[in-house]
Amino acid sequence: MLKEAIFHRPKQNWAYGYDDETVHLRIRTKRGDVDHVDVIYGDKCTPWSAIMTEPMTVMGSDELFDYWEAAVRPPYRRLSYGFVIHDGEQQLWYTEKGFSAVPPSVHLGLFEYPCLNPIDILKPPAWVKDAVFYQLFTERFANGDSSIDPSNVLPWGGKPEYDNFFGGDLQGVRDHLDYLSELGVNAIYFNPIFEAPANHKYDTQDYMKVDPHFGSNETLKRLVQACHERGIRVMLDAVFNHCGITFAPFVDVREKGIDSVYKDWFHIRKWPLEIEQGIPTYETFAFEATMPKFNTANAQVKEYLLGVAEYWIKEIGIDGWRLDVANEVDHQFWREFRQVVKRANPEAYILGEVWHDSLMWLQGDQFDGVMNYPLTNAALDFFVFGHSDARKFADTVSGLLAWYPKQANEACFNLLGSHDTVRLLTLCKNDKRMMKLAVLFQFTIAGAPCIYYGDEIGLDGEFDPDNRKCMEWDTSKQDRELFAFHQHVIALRKQHEVLRTGAFRVLLAEEDDSRFAYERSDGKERLVVLMNPAEQSSVVVVSLAEGEWKDAFTGASITASGGQYSEELAAYGYRVLVSAS
Amino acid sequence: MLKEAIFHRPKQNWAYGYDDETVHLRIRTKRGDVDHVDVIYGDKCTPWSAIMTEPMTVMGSDELFDYWEAAVRPPYRRLSYGFVIHDGEQQLWYTEKGFSAVPPSVHLGLFEYPCLNPIDILKPPAWVKDAVFYQLFTERFANGDSSIDPSNVLPWGGKPEYDNFFGGDLQGVRDHLDYLSELGVNAIYFNPIFEAPANHKYDTQDYMKVDPHFGSNETLKRLVQACHERGIRVMLDAVFNHCGITFAPFVDVREKGIDSVYKDWFHIRKWPLEIEQGIPTYETFAFEATMPKFNTANAQVKEYLLGVAEYWIKEIGIDGWRLDVANEVDHQFWREFRQVVKRANPEAYILGEVWHDSLMWLQGDQFDGVMNYPLTNAALDFFVFGHSDARKFADTVSGLLAWYPKQANEACFNLLGSHDTVRLLTLCKNDKRMMKLAVLFQFTIAGAPCIYYGDEIGLDGEFDPDNRKCMEWDTSKQDRELFAFHQHVIALRKQHEVLRTGAFRVLLAEEDDSRFAYERSDGKERLVVLMNPAEQSSVVVVSLAEGEWKDAFTGASITASGGQYSEELAAYGYRVLVSAS
Repeated sequence: MLKEAIFHRPKQNWAYGYDDETVHLRIRTKRGDVDHVDVIYGDKCTPWSAIMTEPMTVMGSDELFDYWEAAVRPPYRRLSYGFVIHDGEQQLWYTEKGFSAVPPSVHLGLFEYPCLNPIDILKPPAWVKDAVFYQLFTERFANGDSSIDPSNVLPWGGKPEYDNFFGGDLQGVRDHLDYLSELGVNAIYFNPIFEAPANHKYDTQDYMKVDPHFGSNETLKRLVQACHERGIRVMLDAVFNHCGITFAPFVDVREKGIDSVYKDWFHIRKWPLEIEQGIPTYETFAFEATMPKFNTANAQVKEYLLGVAEYWIKEIGIDGWRLDVANEVDHQFWREFRQVVKRANPEAYILGEVWHDSLMWLQGDQFDGVMNYPLTNAALDFFVFGHSDARKFADTVSGLLAWYPKQANEACFNLLGSHDTVRLLTLCKNDKRMMKLAVLFQFTIAGAPCIYYGDEIGLDGEFDPDNRKCMEWDTSKQDRELFAFHQHVIALRKQHEVLRTGAFRVLLAEEDDSRFAYERSDGKERLVVLMNPAEQSSVVVVSLAEGEWKDAFTGASITASGGQYSEELAAYGYRVLVSAS
Repeated sequence: MLKEAIFHRPKQNWAYGYDDETVHLRIRTKRGDVDHVDVIYGDKCTPWSAIMTEPMTVMGSDELFDYWEAAVRPPYRRLSYGFVIHDGEQQLWYTEKGFSAVPPSVHLGLFEYPCLNPIDILKPPAWVKDAVFYQLFTERFANGDSSIDPSNVLPWGGKPEYDNFFGGDLQGVRDHLDYLSELGVNAIYFNPIFEAPANHKYDTQDYMKVDPHFGSNETLKRLVQACHERGIRVMLDAVFNHCGITFAPFVDVREKGIDSVYKDWFHIRKWPLEIEQGIPTYETFAFEATMPKFNTANAQVKEYLLGVAEYWIKEIGIDGWRLDVANEVDHQFWREFRQVVKRANPEAYILGEVWHDSLMWLQGDQFDGVMNYPLTNAALDFFVFGHSDARKFADTVSGLLAWYPKQANEACFNLLGSHDTVRLLTLCKNDKRMMKLAVLFQFTIAGAPCIYYGDEIGLDGEFDPDNRKCMEWDTSKQDRELFAFHQHVIALRKQHEVLRTGAFRVLLAEEDDSRFAYERSDGKERLVVLMNPAEQSSVVVVSLAEGEWKDAFTGASITASGGQYSEELAAYGYRVLVSAS
């Protein structure tokens, strides 16, 4: 047993409250190194004889490690625990005091999850794990009210540039809610819609006002109501890391310099405000002079932005905030933000834009979920770029699922592309078969999937600005077959709770091979996905549990003999099987 | 290079803001497994060519791992980083994406400390690392005002029982401030002093009132002023996990049951309130029926207790709170507590009673430090119980120093005994030589040391109630030699900043041997401690850096030839050497 490989530390992703009665415990060991692991646990104030044992199961494995997991219920909310690692006849006890060949006999020195306090548990809104999002870049979705077009508006469908406008607006969204319902999505993520000079609106001028070219606050309120009537939730983009240079307090600083009452709203490195060798003398998003960074530790800034956060929830009725550049804003701000937002609506979703390991934002005090770019990158590396084989992909996905608490994984926002990336179909070199496999994976893994507007009808596009083309509304120019595929995977996800909350287990993933199969299971249902992401057809063989299996899309019965299922899948073919379990 | 041993994860103790410009980065590798480690780092928005390299140093090693550390200054507060692990000709790059034999070439995929926001940095009050605490159990320290004695008071010096009283009070403390100044301590930690039935006052009746047998709020205020005039800080005990059964809101619940307006102030499992087979139907500290647990998630409870926290700082002028059973109270409560306390006095110390790994309370949003019981246990295992040899002790201490950020280590509260443990001298079977080595260690390691009242003059005592004897004020019965020893180590710590903030390095610690030597260094000074915790005298040999060395206590010059120092230390002997460096 390789001691150096073993890791556990209380709290974080290794020991966390899952619900008001349950603590999930995890430990990692070297891959394939040990037979099984038990957790011993109890209340530190009851006699040692009351200690209990619970076997752990492997929740997943990556290149180097097996991750073991168990759910335990501390009888009086206080939990002391340790691990017993078994390999053949050998046993090793692991506690906070380290490794021992003999069992502990007192609670002191065990690991502790000292009290399961409900208020500390990360509890994302229940609807999030069931959500299918549609990301909407308003300026390019639909022009529903030409009376509010920008003066320099171009005809719909023209070539997108960094600074041109096509007149998309909120009425355009309202006009196409039937389309979204037909597709099956039940949540919209809007890129910023507050007044701002740029077409992307990330350079906010007025946080309290819908951009006049998009509509009014009242337009938005009615749109939100219309969405809610259809069971569609609405999430807005909170650009709180920075504002635009036309934001009044920053205008004041530009005008009055060090005498401005707003000077502490920003991080001024040096007066006067200017740009020296490409770098502004004030802090900004990246080195983008038009996006000055807020001093979110300043009490006035905090009061202002938290007021903004509250207003759109309470007055307009939105269901969540996506937090732009969330990782660069201080944690303390987000903790207060969570208090304000959850007080305004306990069911509001708080989604952070963090491109990297986000554990420290997912401890219950800050975000409900994050934009799951690490999963995006893993999926693209496997399905699109061919940078990883099935084994490496399975390892990465399993490792990522062990990064966060289960409820955080389920409330993550899983995307394959956005306004910040090359469009998926373009990455796939317009190979729809390849794209579909990636989407099928996206819809059959934990976390709320999001479709970037137009991906579902074959919109393509290189990096910004090309990824922000006008939505195609001429159905004869839409890829209706791709649209139908998206309808199917959305329906599949909605029909099968197991896809939202079930355990993930890799069934097939070999080195130097791309055939990939995995199972989702929750004790009520099993769902198996088989894929052949390759240019050649190939026979895929997986073990199947006893029971009646059906094709999840067609309902046709599947014959599995001797506990095995075997099928020759076409190039980029797939099969989804389902069984009551 | 054993990949399975390598661990790093952003934030926590592995990557933390140390000051407004500096991030400390750490990584662990298998002990003795690699030659050296570099960190590569830069701003993610500058070109890759601007990436920098910083060598890491081993900050310590435990049984299995070397812990490497480096301090870096991100030029624009944004930090992307990765590690380069060197062994012979071999190089391994380690980033968030895992291991690679080839270097990364883009920032994406590196680890990120996305923005060094000052408000997120753990910044314990500067005075704490320089503090020497004296723990004072008021009922047993000195009776200065017999007019407020409890009616059942016993003559001073009698046998302590669970429920007897000797009349110690705040005037008694006031009367002996000269004694504390003579000893040299500059901070007092008071066990609870609010009105409560028990002699230990952990069963609070009124959080807004000093116990009438101890004095009045005014007595305390004047005492705090008198302490401040001597440069002595005052910390009180905040018993916020639970109250006593005579606390008015709980009395109301006992009387009115489910109709009480205070019923949600507590955790009632089942009505009526009773004890079933030794377990109360309401939650308590342990299963102690007289100590009902607060519902600290309840808004009214929060308002009440945070009001208490504020009052004693603002109105009475105390300098800190020691949080009783801090680990069982919800994190959210402590976050709000920190806001209130630091607003009342930014220099107030927040010290949590946590007996185990406390990382998740030391992230900047909750505590400044914790009662360092893991260090206590390591020291007792080595110096007193002989459960560990020098190697194991060195491993444990080094491992503990890697658990927390540096500033948390420095603000921890290092104790060798308290009202909750057997007295140190008794544990040492009255062997003062043994006790002195443990104390010398306590005063020469990072973290504020605390002396439990009377330990310094030879008070002994088994577990509660015997560890709460009356303080001995007859100097002929005090161990004045032990007192002088404590004066010396206190003076040593005060004279040498290196003892409070310097790096720790083990110089001598072998298996199956108890000779132990270590160095503290800070670039300005080096201090070396040699110890022989054994029944036989023994020659201790250590390498000494070039320079003039002196005995730290006597000032006598030390001869070190050929870069070595060698001395035969008597049984339980020690030597402390110091050199400008």
